[in-house]
Amino acid sequence: MRILDQTLLPGQEAYRELDSVEAIAEAIRLLRVRGAPLIGIAAAMGVVQAVGKRGSGKAGKQVLERVHEACKLLGATRPTAVNLQWALDRMLRRAEQACAAGEELRDALIAEATAIWDEDRAMCDRIGELGAALIPAGSTVCTVCNAGALATGGIGTALAPVYTLHRAGQSPHVVIPETRPLLQGSRLTAWELIQAGVDCTLIADGMIASRLRLGDIACVIVGADRIAANGDVANKIGTYGLALAARAHGIPFYVAAPSSTFDPATPDGSRIPIEQRDGSEVASWQGSRTAPAGIKVWNPAFDVTPADLITGIITDKGIFKPNEIGHSEAAGLSRY
Amino acid sequence: MRILDQTLLPGQEAYRELDSVEAIAEAIRLLRVRGAPLIGIAAAMGVVQAVGKRGSGKAGKQVLERVHEACKLLGATRPTAVNLQWALDRMLRRAEQACAAGEELRDALIAEATAIWDEDRAMCDRIGELGAALIPAGSTVCTVCNAGALATGGIGTALAPVYTLHRAGQSPHVVIPETRPLLQGSRLTAWELIQAGVDCTLIADGMIASRLRLGDIACVIVGADRIAANGDVANKIGTYGLALAARAHGIPFYVAAPSSTFDPATPDGSRIPIEQRDGSEVASWQGSRTAPAGIKVWNPAFDVTPADLITGIITDKGIFKPNEIGHSEAAGLSRY
Repeated sequence: MRILDQTLLPGQEAYRELDSVEAIAEAIRLLRVRGAPLIGIAAAMGVVQAVGKRGSGKAGKQVLERVHEACKLLGATRPTAVNLQWALDRMLRRAEQACAAGEELRDALIAEATAIWDEDRAMCDRIGELGAALIPAGSTVCTVCNAGALATGGIGTALAPVYTLHRAGQSPHVVIPETRPLLQGSRLTAWELIQAGVDCTLIADGMIASRLRLGDIACVIVGADRIAANGDVANKIGTYGLALAARAHGIPFYVAAPSSTFDPATPDGSRIPIEQRDGSEVASWQGSRTAPAGIKVWNPAFDVTPADLITGIITDKGIFKPNEIGHSEAAGLSRY
Repeated sequence: MRILDQTLLPGQEAYRELDSVEAIAEAIRLLRVRGAPLIGIAAAMGVVQAVGKRGSGKAGKQVLERVHEACKLLGATRPTAVNLQWALDRMLRRAEQACAAGEELRDALIAEATAIWDEDRAMCDRIGELGAALIPAGSTVCTVCNAGALATGGIGTALAPVYTLHRAGQSPHVVIPETRPLLQGSRLTAWELIQAGVDCTLIADGMIASRLRLGDIACVIVGADRIAANGDVANKIGTYGLALAARAHGIPFYVAAPSSTFDPATPDGSRIPIEQRDGSEVASWQGSRTAPAGIKVWNPAFDVTPADLITGIITDKGIFKPNEIGHSEAAGLSRY
């Protein structure tokens, strides 16, 4: 398995070979691979690694044990994005079926991981089509963090409508908050949009409210790491403040995410586990301190945007009001 | 004139000797000296440098010309903070008086600059006393940027109430957003609060709304660079988003500033000139790029918080509602 090490962008475009479950788990933990959908895909491919080259129907039980362990290790890397557990559950279920049926396990898991990736790509395309219709021609949109090609197996979630319009020659201008502490906005979103030739402008996170006040932003589109049953959305820290600013200026606020991001088992945002990361991410940059030694830091990686600040949730199954998303069966949304 | 070079904090505590008007202007432009009140003090001392060692009543007209030129150079360094122009106007007026009266110009200007500094120190103390009464014992407050001792000739504006309570053994806990792009929160506010022994916690700017939602923050206190006649306040970029988040959570939002920050000649915030700084401040950090080459950047140094988001303005002349501040004579507020 070969990945683009996202921690080195935009300075270096370096690829890494990951040849064990542990290496893949570490890459997810260190954010070399990140973005809720892409983490799911990487973890699914990690499960394949657990089987080794000789998984078979006959060696099923032992190998199945290794698959279980791999799922446990990979599932513990990051707590907030639900797609990770969704992809692992799916791989585990397929492994159990394959063993029960005496199928070649490795082939079955490769097929399942490939299906997860292919479906993700199709989801991105569908989100792109649906979202593109919400963006007036020639307008400006604002996003946060990176919910683009680098975060998915396809053209992204929040950025999918941008790419869809760009291909049609109607690219919007994208305002990108840098997204501290890890700068996924400036390092990743700016990088991939410039590579694609999309017009964009970088701002610091504290400039969001002032930028929205200028009056030319047609809508905000962000990704999601988990959507609770009541429509509350966990996404990169800073999303909630962006949603408050959008509300203050009457700007529509959309969440774009594959249906696998919906978690009916979590009733509301207060129940979503929020990953707390090391304070050094805020207190230093590339090894040099930006704050005095001994400073206490609060560093949650995600926040929760309440459903009432969200105009719509753009999924591969359609666009929903946040209060519709809980009626998952009616809405055609379910985890599996 | 000796200054602490604030661009090198917190890594280095280095002092610089500034022996010309040009050197002082450059130090203000490069933010080696920053903070609205301190810029005023530094500029006033810069005017003294223009006179040289031999200013006298007799040599008045020639020297007065140099004072005029110095005021023009220093006044052009930064556009948003009104205290700068206020201090320069005051120095110029004193120079004209001294010349007309045949006084020793250098002595008169040293006395005026010293008075500006002394008054600033007294203003800080008064703001500290008034503001301290607004903060319940043992509570947490949130600020932004640096409006502390490093920004003034005394104990600060927004941080003055914190220091006043700290001296009384009732220090609040201070939440400090790092304040990108130049990190005045993490580099300066965290540095001076830790030096003083005040308990504080650093967050990234995008965490503000989530931190306020936790429910333990008694109030927000920020500084100001200019207060318009209608009570709109220009302050460090990010202040407006902080004010929106405070409103969303029902948290009182106070502005603390010396009365010299009030500008009755500016009717409202839309008329305050907002300094735009170089995009490299956002796109790189300490010489290494954080965003891809060629990225467009929007980098205003200040934003405007509308009067209706402000609970009160704490000045050396009392605490005012934003809509009272325009009645400057009734409120005892005037520029001179």
